Amino acid sequence: MKYSIGVDLGGTNTDLGLVTENGNIVQRRNMATNAYTDFALYIRDFMREVDLMLADQQAIDGQAVQLEGIGVGAPNGNFYTGCVDNAPNLTMKGVLDFAKEIHRYRDTPVVLSNDANAAAYGEYIYGGAKGMRHFIMFTLGTGVGSGIVVDGRLVHGSTGAAGELGHAILYQHGRKCTCGREGCLETYTSARGIVQTYCELKGIPVSPEVTSKLIGELAHQGDPIALKTWETVGDQLGLAMANAVTFSAPEAIFLMGGPAQVGEPLLKPLREAFDRYLLNIFAGSCQIRMSELKANEVAILGAAALLKMK
Amino acid sequence: MKYSIGVDLGGTNTDLGLVTENGNIVQRRNMATNAYTDFALYIRDFMREVDLMLADQQAIDGQAVQLEGIGVGAPNGNFYTGCVDNAPNLTMKGVLDFAKEIHRYRDTPVVLSNDANAAAYGEYIYGGAKGMRHFIMFTLGTGVGSGIVVDGRLVHGSTGAAGELGHAILYQHGRKCTCGREGCLETYTSARGIVQTYCELKGIPVSPEVTSKLIGELAHQGDPIALKTWETVGDQLGLAMANAVTFSAPEAIFLMGGPAQVGEPLLKPLREAFDRYLLNIFAGSCQIRMSELKANEVAILGAAALLKMK
Repeated sequence: MKYSIGVDLGGTNTDLGLVTENGNIVQRRNMATNAYTDFALYIRDFMREVDLMLADQQAIDGQAVQLEGIGVGAPNGNFYTGCVDNAPNLTMKGVLDFAKEIHRYRDTPVVLSNDANAAAYGEYIYGGAKGMRHFIMFTLGTGVGSGIVVDGRLVHGSTGAAGELGHAILYQHGRKCTCGREGCLETYTSARGIVQTYCELKGIPVSPEVTSKLIGELAHQGDPIALKTWETVGDQLGLAMANAVTFSAPEAIFLMGGPAQVGEPLLKPLREAFDRYLLNIFAGSCQIRMSELKANEVAILGAAALLKMK
Repeated sequence: MKYSIGVDLGGTNTDLGLVTENGNIVQRRNMATNAYTDFALYIRDFMREVDLMLADQQAIDGQAVQLEGIGVGAPNGNFYTGCVDNAPNLTMKGVLDFAKEIHRYRDTPVVLSNDANAAAYGEYIYGGAKGMRHFIMFTLGTGVGSGIVVDGRLVHGSTGAAGELGHAILYQHGRKCTCGREGCLETYTSARGIVQTYCELKGIPVSPEVTSKLIGELAHQGDPIALKTWETVGDQLGLAMANAVTFSAPEAIFLMGGPAQVGEPLLKPLREAFDRYLLNIFAGSCQIRMSELKANEVAILGAAALLKMK
């Protein structure tokens, strides 16, 4: 049987999954990323986890296991170099050459990209974007990420870092962003941005008790300020999505991540705003859809999907 | 010898050019587009012009002429269908099937795209973007057009109409656009948008005497309001270009068209704004450059270049 390994490299945990040809995760393991400062040591332990999964699977299948490769979704993961470049949220510093280090242990394809690109590719290979030639994935979370597929290929651009629509500037001279600039989409439609909007509308200071999840629950209870918050976020995201359509005219824009789970309180104003802001020649040509992958599987499936890239 | 024919289809004139393999226009002809309401008649006369150019060239060369194909750059030109779809500025109405109609006369490849896409591809095949895998062309004129190359391929999107960055919304609730929406980049950085900004800054009504060319001349004479106008336009265009970089991380963004000819009064504030608005991970990765094709050749060369598409 043929398997690939998908890896979700986060600042706290590294999640590994053994994935079948048709996108079932049959085994999972994880290790504490933040326990490591030495990358060589990290990869030694990482490859032990890989070997254990493969050995276990061989025992389960009762036949040889064929490894298609290792796909890694990581913050600042660079597709062209196979390296993680100076990711600020990792305890391992500098440029981490995954491909090179893994090849000291095993001769298998290693493909790396950032997490939002991986999510987009997961949707393409295993989810709702199967067969689409042009689509965009927006991931809402701590930040706002995006992955873009044009002509059936993930857009990496000249640097490997293309698809950063969370840092397209929505409002010139808008909210201060962690990137040092002002008005990025992320400052409005990330979990933090949503909380800020709610607190501004309510006239209260931002505090850890107010989360985007809570604002979602309040909206479902009919709280007017929570509803107004999602309406505002929907309007902002709808504008950003309509602008993205002028670039690549996708068949669909997918949405995933915690804040998107709120459902209709966001989706209804989002779709209305999108239609309102969409250039008339694109009317009806692009759907807004929720990711069809499970929230706890998308990172691993997306990373594994990177190995299917032509 | 091998030649292609590049066609610039405008509402008033149709310009045809016979183009050599390395991008020299060796013959030109033109016909009055607006003299026709019957498309079949138009194509009959169009093909006469084509035949005349080929016959003349055969006499000049003293040997058989090989035609690589006919490339057409046209408003609303659809790459996928080979048709011009309901172009508002043409006297010939409805869907004009160039490929089908031309093939009644001659069995040769026919490729069609909109004018900005053709300009981008012309830059790629014959101009400053040779060998680049990722770049964007902005055309400033009556409107603002764009053509986008990703991974060496022109982005047409799912509908064929991708690359409409002139209609990305720069300012929500901004200036009214001819497309019926508000705040499109085009309302600020087209010739008309530039005139409007100048007149607003000067506190005078918009009139036919004020043109972007005049505002360019005034800027070169040191007129402070004209200089402020170009500074404003540079800021707006720089923001739009920085946003475009978050999409496809191009190696370069090219600029062409009448208003861009003003030079430094626009280019200096444009480059400064671009650097200021660019996400730090892209710093230094993307140049802003002027088109290297001649203004009176780009439309024909771009149309001919479409035939080189893989």
